[in-house]
Amino acid sequence: MDYIPSIAIDMDETIADPISKARAWYYRDYGVAFTDDQMHGKHFGEVVPPEHKAIITQYLNTPGFFRDLDIFADAQRVIEELNKKYRVFIVSAAMEFPNSLLDKVQWLQEFFPYLTWRQYCLCGDKSVVQTDYMIDDLTRNFVHFKGKPFLYHGHHNVHAEGYERVMNWEDVANKLL
Amino acid sequence: MDYIPSIAIDMDETIADPISKARAWYYRDYGVAFTDDQMHGKHFGEVVPPEHKAIITQYLNTPGFFRDLDIFADAQRVIEELNKKYRVFIVSAAMEFPNSLLDKVQWLQEFFPYLTWRQYCLCGDKSVVQTDYMIDDLTRNFVHFKGKPFLYHGHHNVHAEGYERVMNWEDVANKLL
Repeated sequence: MDYIPSIAIDMDETIADPISKARAWYYRDYGVAFTDDQMHGKHFGEVVPPEHKAIITQYLNTPGFFRDLDIFADAQRVIEELNKKYRVFIVSAAMEFPNSLLDKVQWLQEFFPYLTWRQYCLCGDKSVVQTDYMIDDLTRNFVHFKGKPFLYHGHHNVHAEGYERVMNWEDVANKLL
Repeated sequence: MDYIPSIAIDMDETIADPISKARAWYYRDYGVAFTDDQMHGKHFGEVVPPEHKAIITQYLNTPGFFRDLDIFADAQRVIEELNKKYRVFIVSAAMEFPNSLLDKVQWLQEFFPYLTWRQYCLCGDKSVVQTDYMIDDLTRNFVHFKGKPFLYHGHHNVHAEGYERVMNWEDVANKLL
Protein backbone atom coordinates (compact mmCIF):
# COMPACT_ATOMS: atom_id res chain seq x y z
CA MET A 1 0.00 0.00 0.00
CA ASP A 2 1.26 3.47 -0.79
CA TYR A 3 2.36 5.64 2.10
CA ILE A 4 -0.24 8.27 2.95
CA PRO A 5 1.41 11.42 4.31
CA SER A 6 0.11 12.92 7.54
CA ILE A 7 -0.80 16.52 8.18
CA ALA A 8 -1.40 18.31 11.50
CA ILE A 9 -3.82 21.23 11.29
CA ASP A 10 -4.05 23.76 14.10
CA MET A 11 -7.43 25.11 15.33
CA ASP A 12 -7.28 28.64 16.79
CA GLU A 13 -6.38 31.28 14.20
CA THR A 14 -5.99 28.56 11.55
CA ILE A 15 -9.52 27.16 11.19
CA ALA A 16 -11.36 28.79 14.12
CA ASP A 17 -11.58 32.46 15.09
CA PRO A 18 -11.39 33.02 18.87
CA ILE A 19 -10.03 36.57 18.48
CA SER A 20 -13.17 38.10 16.96
CA LYS A 21 -15.13 36.69 19.88
CA ALA A 22 -12.61 37.89 22.49
CA ARG A 23 -12.68 41.37 20.90
CA ALA A 24 -16.50 41.35 21.00
CA TRP A 25 -16.57 40.29 24.66
CA TYR A 26 -13.97 42.94 25.52
CA TYR A 27 -16.08 45.60 23.80
CA ARG A 28 -19.15 44.33 25.69
CA ASP A 29 -17.32 44.56 29.05
CA TYR A 30 -15.14 47.67 28.57
CA GLY A 31 -16.64 49.55 25.63
CA VAL A 32 -13.29 49.53 23.84
CA ALA A 33 -12.93 48.22 20.29
CA PHE A 34 -9.46 47.70 18.87
CA THR A 35 -8.82 48.44 15.20
CA ASP A 36 -7.02 46.06 12.87
CA ASP A 37 -4.18 48.59 12.85
CA GLN A 38 -3.85 48.31 16.63
CA MET A 39 -3.88 44.50 16.40
CA HIS A 40 -1.24 44.40 13.64
CA GLY A 41 1.75 42.24 14.60
CA LYS A 42 0.41 41.56 18.09
CA HIS A 43 -1.48 38.96 20.11
CA PHE A 44 -4.68 40.18 21.72
CA GLY A 45 -3.12 39.86 25.19
CA GLU A 46 -0.49 42.40 24.10
CA VAL A 47 -3.05 44.94 22.88
CA VAL A 48 -5.15 45.27 26.03
CA PRO A 49 -3.80 47.17 29.07
CA PRO A 50 -1.46 44.90 31.13
CA GLU A 51 -3.95 44.77 34.02
CA HIS A 52 -6.53 43.28 31.61
CA LYS A 53 -4.41 40.35 30.39
CA ALA A 54 -6.02 38.12 33.03
CA ILE A 55 -9.47 39.06 31.67
CA ILE A 56 -8.59 37.58 28.28
CA THR A 57 -7.36 34.38 29.96
CA GLN A 58 -10.65 34.26 31.86
CA TYR A 59 -12.63 34.60 28.60
CA LEU A 60 -10.71 31.68 27.09
CA ASN A 61 -11.43 29.42 30.05
CA THR A 62 -15.16 30.20 30.11
CA PRO A 63 -17.16 27.04 29.30
CA GLY A 64 -18.80 27.59 25.91
CA PHE A 65 -16.30 30.21 24.66
CA PHE A 66 -14.83 27.88 22.02
CA ARG A 67 -18.12 26.11 21.18
CA ASP A 68 -19.52 28.58 18.63
CA LEU A 69 -16.48 30.24 17.10
CA ASP A 70 -16.63 31.38 13.49
CA ILE A 71 -14.89 29.10 11.03
CA PHE A 72 -12.33 30.35 8.52
CA ALA A 73 -13.49 30.64 4.91
CA ASP A 74 -13.00 27.52 2.75
CA ALA A 75 -11.56 25.48 5.65
CA GLN A 76 -14.38 22.91 5.57
CA ARG A 77 -14.17 22.33 1.83
CA VAL A 78 -10.36 22.25 1.58
CA ILE A 79 -9.88 19.99 4.62
CA GLU A 80 -12.49 17.60 3.20
CA GLU A 81 -10.30 17.30 0.09
CA LEU A 82 -7.08 17.05 2.13
CA ASN A 83 -8.74 14.24 4.11
CA LYS A 84 -8.92 12.15 0.93
CA LYS A 85 -5.23 12.55 0.19
CA TYR A 86 -3.58 12.81 3.63
CA ARG A 87 -3.97 11.38 7.13
CA VAL A 88 -5.42 14.55 8.61
CA PHE A 89 -5.09 15.35 12.32
CA ILE A 90 -6.50 18.41 14.04
CA VAL A 91 -3.92 19.34 16.67
CA SER A 92 -4.67 22.07 19.17
CA ALA A 93 -2.58 23.19 22.14
CA ALA A 94 -5.72 23.52 24.26
CA MET A 95 -4.63 22.23 27.68
CA GLU A 96 -4.05 25.67 29.20
CA PHE A 97 -7.85 25.99 29.11
CA PRO A 98 -9.36 22.67 30.27
CA ASN A 99 -12.89 24.03 29.89
CA SER A 100 -12.23 24.41 26.16
CA LEU A 101 -11.68 20.68 25.56
CA LEU A 102 -15.27 19.47 25.21
CA ASP A 103 -16.24 22.67 23.36
CA LYS A 104 -13.48 22.06 20.83
CA VAL A 105 -14.49 18.44 20.25
CA GLN A 106 -18.13 19.43 19.73
CA TRP A 107 -17.13 22.28 17.41
CA LEU A 108 -15.07 19.85 15.30
CA GLN A 109 -17.96 17.36 15.22
CA GLU A 110 -20.27 20.13 13.97
CA PHE A 111 -18.07 21.66 11.28
CA PHE A 112 -16.06 18.61 10.18
CA PRO A 113 -18.51 15.68 10.21
CA TYR A 114 -16.25 13.75 7.82
CA LEU A 115 -13.45 13.64 10.43
CA THR A 116 -13.60 11.17 13.33
CA TRP A 117 -12.47 11.42 16.96
CA ARG A 118 -9.41 9.41 15.95
CA GLN A 119 -8.23 12.53 14.11
CA TYR A 120 -8.39 14.94 17.07
CA CYS A 121 -5.41 15.70 19.28
CA LEU A 122 -5.65 18.19 22.15
CA CYS A 123 -2.31 18.73 23.84
CA GLY A 124 -0.32 21.15 25.93
CA ASP A 125 2.85 21.28 23.88
CA LYS A 126 3.06 20.27 20.23
CA SER A 127 6.68 19.14 20.51
CA VAL A 128 5.48 15.51 20.88
CA VAL A 129 3.51 15.66 17.62
CA GLN A 130 5.31 14.55 14.48
CA THR A 131 3.59 14.48 11.09
CA ASP A 132 4.77 15.08 7.54
CA TYR A 133 3.16 18.53 7.30
CA MET A 134 1.92 21.05 9.84
CA ILE A 135 -0.28 24.10 9.27
CA ASP A 136 -0.15 26.49 12.21
CA ASP A 137 -0.24 30.22 12.90
CA LEU A 138 2.39 30.08 15.68
CA THR A 139 6.06 29.62 14.82
CA ARG A 140 6.76 28.28 18.33
CA ASN A 141 4.94 25.10 17.32
CA PHE A 142 7.51 24.52 14.55
CA VAL A 143 10.61 24.60 16.79
CA HIS A 144 10.74 20.82 17.42
CA PHE A 145 8.80 19.87 14.30
CA LYS A 146 10.69 17.66 11.84
CA GLY A 147 8.20 17.76 8.94
CA LYS A 148 7.38 20.59 6.54
CA PRO A 149 5.70 23.55 8.27
CA PHE A 150 3.31 26.05 6.71
CA LEU A 151 2.71 29.27 8.63
CA TYR A 152 -0.95 30.22 8.45
CA HIS A 153 -1.03 33.97 7.97
CA GLY A 154 -2.56 36.19 10.65
CA HIS A 155 -2.23 39.81 11.74
CA HIS A 156 -0.33 38.62 14.85
CA ASN A 157 2.39 36.79 12.87
CA VAL A 158 3.04 39.31 10.07
CA HIS A 159 6.59 39.84 11.35
CA ALA A 160 7.45 36.10 11.51
CA GLU A 161 9.99 35.00 8.92
CA GLY A 162 11.69 31.80 7.80
CA TYR A 163 8.60 29.70 7.09
CA GLU A 164 6.53 29.16 3.98
CA ARG A 165 3.37 31.19 4.53
CA VAL A 166 -0.17 30.27 3.49
CA MET A 167 -2.53 33.24 3.25
CA ASN A 168 -5.85 31.40 3.45
CA TRP A 169 -7.40 27.96 2.80
CA GLU A 170 -7.56 28.50 -0.96
CA ASP A 171 -3.81 29.00 -0.79
CA VAL A 172 -3.46 25.72 1.17
CA ALA A 173 -5.46 23.97 -1.56
CA ASN A 174 -3.12 25.31 -4.22
CA LYS A 175 -0.04 24.09 -2.35
CA LEU A 176 -1.18 20.73 -1.01
CA LEU A 177 -3.91 19.43 -3.31
CA MET B 1 22.68 21.90 26.82
CA ASP B 2 22.39 18.14 27.07
CA TYR B 3 19.53 16.50 25.26
CA ILE B 4 16.75 15.46 27.63
CA PRO B 5 14.95 12.36 26.36
CA SER B 6 11.16 12.40 26.20
CA ILE B 7 8.80 9.76 27.52
CA ALA B 8 5.09 9.27 26.78
CA ILE B 9 3.14 7.66 29.62
CA ASP B 10 -0.32 6.24 29.03
CA MET B 11 -3.17 6.74 31.55
CA ASP B 12 -5.78 3.95 31.56
CA GLU B 13 -4.38 0.62 32.75
CA THR B 14 -0.93 2.19 33.10
CA ILE B 15 -1.37 4.77 35.86
CA ALA B 16 -5.18 4.83 36.33
CA ASP B 17 -7.58 1.94 36.93
CA PRO B 18 -10.87 2.30 35.01
CA ILE B 19 -11.49 -1.47 34.96
CA SER B 20 -12.05 -1.88 38.71
CA LYS B 21 -14.62 0.89 38.52
CA ALA B 22 -16.35 -0.55 35.41
CA ARG B 23 -16.47 -3.97 37.13
CA ALA B 24 -18.00 -2.38 40.25
CA TRP B 25 -20.61 -0.50 38.21
CA TYR B 26 -21.45 -3.67 36.27
CA TYR B 27 -21.92 -5.55 39.54
CA ARG B 28 -24.13 -2.71 40.83
CA ASP B 29 -26.29 -2.83 37.66
CA TYR B 30 -26.35 -6.59 36.88
CA GLY B 31 -25.27 -8.34 40.07
CA VAL B 32 -22.51 -10.13 38.18
CA ALA B 33 -18.89 -10.01 39.34
CA PHE B 34 -16.18 -11.36 37.05
CA THR B 35 -13.20 -13.15 38.55
CA ASP B 36 -9.60 -12.38 37.63
CA ASP B 37 -9.55 -15.79 35.92
CA GLN B 38 -12.45 -14.76 33.69
CA MET B 39 -10.69 -11.46 32.87
CA HIS B 40 -7.36 -13.15 32.05
CA GLY B 41 -6.14 -12.25 28.55
CA LYS B 42 -9.26 -10.23 27.74
CA HIS B 43 -10.58 -6.69 27.65
CA PHE B 44 -13.62 -6.02 29.81
CA GLY B 45 -15.79 -5.52 26.70
CA GLU B 46 -14.94 -9.12 25.69
CA VAL B 47 -15.94 -10.58 29.06
CA VAL B 48 -19.49 -9.22 29.29
CA PRO B 49 -22.26 -10.68 27.10
CA PRO B 50 -22.15 -9.14 23.58
CA GLU B 51 -25.44 -7.30 24.16
CA HIS B 52 -23.81 -5.52 27.13
CA LYS B 53 -20.80 -4.15 25.27
CA ALA B 54 -22.65 -0.87 24.73
CA ILE B 55 -23.22 -0.60 28.50
CA ILE B 56 -19.48 -0.52 29.11
CA THR B 57 -19.09 2.20 26.45
CA GLN B 58 -21.85 4.15 28.20
CA TYR B 59 -20.05 3.86 31.55
CA LEU B 60 -16.87 5.24 30.00
CA ASN B 61 -18.67 8.25 28.56
CA THR B 62 -20.46 9.12 31.80
CA PRO B 63 -19.23 12.52 33.08
CA GLY B 64 -17.28 11.87 36.28
CA PHE B 65 -16.37 8.24 35.49
CA PHE B 66 -12.66 9.03 35.02
CA ARG B 67 -12.49 11.72 37.74
CA ASP B 68 -11.92 9.51 40.79
CA LEU B 69 -10.19 6.41 39.45
CA ASP B 70 -7.72 4.58 41.65
CA ILE B 71 -4.08 5.27 40.89
CA PHE B 72 -1.54 2.49 40.33
CA ALA B 73 0.88 1.81 43.18
CA ASP B 74 4.14 3.81 43.09
CA ALA B 75 3.12 5.73 39.93
CA GLN B 76 3.19 9.12 41.67
CA ARG B 77 6.60 8.61 43.22
CA VAL B 78 8.28 7.05 40.18
CA ILE B 79 6.88 9.59 37.69
CA GLU B 80 8.06 12.41 39.97
CA GLU B 81 11.58 10.99 39.66
CA LEU B 82 11.21 10.39 35.90
CA ASN B 83 10.11 14.03 35.58
CA LYS B 84 13.54 15.15 36.81
CA LYS B 85 15.39 13.09 34.22
CA TYR B 86 13.06 13.04 31.20
CA ARG B 87 10.61 15.31 29.41
CA VAL B 88 7.50 13.50 30.65
CA PHE B 89 4.23 13.58 28.71
CA ILE B 90 1.01 11.92 29.78
CA VAL B 91 -0.58 10.70 26.54
CA SER B 92 -4.07 9.22 26.59
CA ALA B 93 -6.20 8.11 23.62
CA ALA B 94 -9.28 9.64 25.25
CA MET B 95 -11.17 11.16 22.33
CA GLU B 96 -13.63 8.30 21.93
CA PHE B 97 -15.11 9.55 25.21
CA PRO B 98 -15.27 13.37 25.05
CA ASN B 99 -16.86 13.55 28.50
CA SER B 100 -13.68 12.01 29.93
CA LEU B 101 -11.45 14.91 28.85
CA LEU B 102 -12.02 17.37 31.69
CA ASP B 103 -12.16 14.49 34.23
CA LYS B 104 -8.77 13.27 33.06
CA VAL B 105 -7.18 16.71 33.29
CA GLN B 106 -8.54 17.22 36.81
CA TRP B 107 -7.42 13.73 37.85
CA LEU B 108 -3.90 14.49 36.61
CA GLN B 109 -3.89 17.85 38.42
CA GLU B 110 -4.87 16.08 41.64
CA PHE B 111 -2.45 13.16 41.54
CA PHE B 112 0.51 14.72 39.68
CA PRO B 113 0.74 18.30 40.97
CA TYR B 114 4.38 18.46 39.82
CA LEU B 115 3.32 18.06 36.16
CA THR B 116 1.89 21.01 34.21
CA TRP B 117 -0.78 21.23 31.52
CA ARG B 118 2.03 21.48 28.98
CA GLN B 119 2.73 17.80 29.71
CA TYR B 120 -0.79 16.49 28.96
CA CYS B 121 -1.81 15.14 25.56
CA LEU B 122 -5.30 13.76 24.94
CA CYS B 123 -5.65 12.33 21.47
CA GLY B 124 -7.63 9.90 19.35
CA ASP B 125 -4.78 7.98 17.80
CA LYS B 126 -1.26 7.88 19.21
CA SER B 127 0.35 7.45 15.78
CA VAL B 128 1.07 11.21 15.70
CA VAL B 129 2.96 11.09 19.00
CA GLN B 130 6.71 10.55 18.81
CA THR B 131 8.89 10.48 21.92
CA ASP B 132 12.03 8.59 22.86
CA TYR B 133 10.20 6.16 25.18
CA MET B 134 6.59 5.09 25.55
CA ILE B 135 4.99 3.18 28.42
CA ASP B 136 1.60 1.76 27.42
CA ASP B 137 -0.53 -1.31 28.08
CA LEU B 138 -1.78 -1.58 24.46
CA THR B 139 0.51 -2.89 21.74
CA ARG B 140 -1.59 -1.14 19.07
CA ASN B 141 -0.12 2.15 20.30
CA PHE B 142 3.38 0.92 19.40
CA VAL B 143 2.67 0.12 15.73
CA HIS B 144 3.75 3.54 14.40
CA PHE B 145 5.99 4.39 17.33
CA LYS B 146 9.65 4.95 16.45
CA GLY B 147 11.06 5.18 19.99
CA LYS B 148 11.59 2.44 22.55
CA PRO B 149 8.30 0.94 23.81
CA PHE B 150 7.65 -0.64 27.20
CA LEU B 151 4.51 -2.75 27.54
CA TYR B 152 2.87 -2.10 30.89
CA HIS B 153 1.71 -5.49 32.14
CA GLY B 154 -2.00 -6.13 32.61
CA HIS B 155 -4.29 -9.17 32.68
CA HIS B 156 -5.65 -8.15 29.24
CA ASN B 157 -2.22 -8.17 27.56
CA VAL B 158 -0.70 -11.33 29.04
CA HIS B 159 -0.62 -12.93 25.59
CA ALA B 160 1.11 -9.98 23.86
CA GLU B 161 4.67 -10.70 22.79
CA GLY B 162 7.55 -8.88 21.16
CA TYR B 163 7.83 -5.94 23.54
CA GLU B 164 9.84 -5.38 26.68
CA ARG B 165 7.37 -5.70 29.52
CA VAL B 166 7.26 -3.70 32.75
CA MET B 167 5.34 -5.39 35.57
CA ASN B 168 4.70 -2.35 37.78
CA TRP B 169 6.07 1.13 38.54
CA GLU B 170 8.87 -0.21 40.69
CA ASP B 171 9.96 -2.15 37.61
CA VAL B 172 9.81 1.06 35.53
CA ALA B 173 12.03 2.76 38.12
CA ASN B 174 14.58 -0.05 37.86
CA LYS B 175 14.69 0.21 34.06
CA LEU B 176 14.52 3.96 33.51
CA LEU B 177 15.93 5.65 36.61
